[in-house]
Amino acid sequence: MRKFLIAGAAALVSLSTLFPISAAAQFAKAEDAVKYRQSAFSLMGNHLGRLAAMARGSVAFDAASAQESARLVQTLSKLPWEGFIPGSDGGNAKLKADPWKEADEFAKLKTKMQDEANKLPEAAANLDSLKKQVGAIGGACKECHEKFRKL
Amino acid sequence: MRKFLIAGAAALVSLSTLFPISAAAQFAKAEDAVKYRQSAFSLMGNHLGRLAAMARGSVAFDAASAQESARLVQTLSKLPWEGFIPGSDGGNAKLKADPWKEADEFAKLKTKMQDEANKLPEAAANLDSLKKQVGAIGGACKECHEKFRKL
Repeated sequence: MRKFLIAGAAALVSLSTLFPISAAAQFAKAEDAVKYRQSAFSLMGNHLGRLAAMARGSVAFDAASAQESARLVQTLSKLPWEGFIPGSDGGNAKLKADPWKEADEFAKLKTKMQDEANKLPEAAANLDSLKKQVGAIGGACKECHEKFRKL
Repeated sequence: MRKFLIAGAAALVSLSTLFPISAAAQFAKAEDAVKYRQSAFSLMGNHLGRLAAMARGSVAFDAASAQESARLVQTLSKLPWEGFIPGSDGGNAKLKADPWKEADEFAKLKTKMQDEANKLPEAAANLDSLKKQVGAIGGACKECHEKFRKL
């Protein structure tokens, strides 16, 4: 038992080195918050790209992989927002408008995207509904990017 | 109907700009594959950090958020591997050993991590089992990082 406790404590110490985190918040530094939201958007973009490729016919439609990507997009669509902490507008951030000053507009566009993401898994069951829903979420992404994100 | 088709086509064109993807593969360029796997690892690291903070007591244990992070880690643990495409060892890649030349060892360590990630959601239901499982997955992360990843 004592041996297990010592091994457990050692593992926790090594885990703290691998995954540093502030004791008080989810992000130790503003750049961690930027990296977090960009990682979530990046994975979403990749899987939306796979769905778009099926929608436009450059990749054969496969319901199982479409639904897997759709479920991932739905899950990931919940993540980035936490990373928009005040002060996280420098470094690698690519903001062109201020999501904190324009909080209502930002929240509206965020909700719109999430609503469309929530419809993706069911839509991905067949190609016609996938096409329609990929268009809808693409429009939501584009609207927010045009307002808040530099190219 | 025609109007809808035109609007749909326009949305697909804009989506292709937002989410470029090769017609033949999940990644148009090696650097996209690197970014994909690093994004998945980065989100995993953040949520493992949250679980580690609860395990070491610097953040109060909360079963609901622990299980949410645990389910995310489980989902994300399936993603990075696809991004290890041959030739994706340059640019921002931080490899110190060759996962393609040492494919068996890499696969073994990948499976070990995923096995531990699969146990996380159930373990996150209470603090004692969370502590144990955070130690176990931390050990699996560390073993692979020591072998394959530069600090």
